[in-house]
Amino acid sequence: MNPRLQEQLKFIYEIDRMKHIVRRTRLFDDSRAENDAEHSWHLAMMASVLHEHANEPVDLCRVIRMLLIHDLVEIYAGDYIVYTEKQEEKARKEHEGARRIFGLLPEDQCVEFMDLWLEFEARQTPESRFANAVDRLEPVMQNYYSAQPTWKTYQISYDKVVDTNKRIRDGSEQLWDYAKTIIDEGFQKLDRTE
Amino acid sequence: MNPRLQEQLKFIYEIDRMKHIVRRTRLFDDSRAENDAEHSWHLAMMASVLHEHANEPVDLCRVIRMLLIHDLVEIYAGDYIVYTEKQEEKARKEHEGARRIFGLLPEDQCVEFMDLWLEFEARQTPESRFANAVDRLEPVMQNYYSAQPTWKTYQISYDKVVDTNKRIRDGSEQLWDYAKTIIDEGFQKLDRTE
Repeated sequence: MNPRLQEQLKFIYEIDRMKHIVRRTRLFDDSRAENDAEHSWHLAMMASVLHEHANEPVDLCRVIRMLLIHDLVEIYAGDYIVYTEKQEEKARKEHEGARRIFGLLPEDQCVEFMDLWLEFEARQTPESRFANAVDRLEPVMQNYYSAQPTWKTYQISYDKVVDTNKRIRDGSEQLWDYAKTIIDEGFQKLDRTE
Repeated sequence: MNPRLQEQLKFIYEIDRMKHIVRRTRLFDDSRAENDAEHSWHLAMMASVLHEHANEPVDLCRVIRMLLIHDLVEIYAGDYIVYTEKQEEKARKEHEGARRIFGLLPEDQCVEFMDLWLEFEARQTPESRFANAVDRLEPVMQNYYSAQPTWKTYQISYDKVVDTNKRIRDGSEQLWDYAKTIIDEGFQKLDRTE
């Protein structure tokens, strides 16, 4: 077989492992935790539908491709909660994970995917700011709809939740208004049940 | 809240149900069946990596957006096996499902998504032919890697498998060469274990 196709198929086989990486956040009906493949699909759909709310015009294709691959590094690095104190360890492991997973691809595609991932992480372009906003909005919604929000399980304070998620505003003022409203309502619900 | 955003968020909430639609085919490590959200993510990734093998040049963004939404109709229609005899019932239920799910969106987006889905179904454009090829290739690979292939479970003959999947060739001769090779090898393995 064409050796280039062989490398591509090896990558396609390996990324199936995303379906086994279980996140902290739960499905909207609260039945179980979500995995990284489902999460990535949902974010790509959210970007497809919500891109008109980005603060700056964005190349939707680039946003979607970024969201589809942004968590592939977790195949080797594992999933860290967004509120983790271990930010340095997380960054180091994720960079190693990126080199390993994208390294399976033919060299030109390895560079292309690595660049997309680095762009997502750096949050310096309109596309990466909007992609990061969407990546934060989904878990906020999941926390809002869940009876077992990670905010409660991991004892994350209201201030920490607001501080960590206000990055949504850099990508979309409008989506941040919505996120802030449901964070406030979510914590009011928690206060009532305590 | 902005009523347009409210409609979009309702759609985003509803499509979470894709994570509960269990397909017949199994993950590459054979541990469990795949769901529609995972499947859609994997196809979008396959298109990202394999689009150079399309018979005709394709607009990758359009292919990816088609693959992300192509199974949303199953939220209401359910998942039919690709080898089903009930093609008419399937088509009718899926059209009803499309109107219902895309109908949650603001009208312009409903039309946009419905057009994308109809394009995928009609297989008359280079993008939809390639998207359909990828949609067939993943289950062929899953059957090949599984000890419990659906080909065996549902007693699908070799000729029927080849006949149903040769549509891959319309999108990519090169991917069909690969698919045909692993269909042949897969049936040889089955013959040896019977």
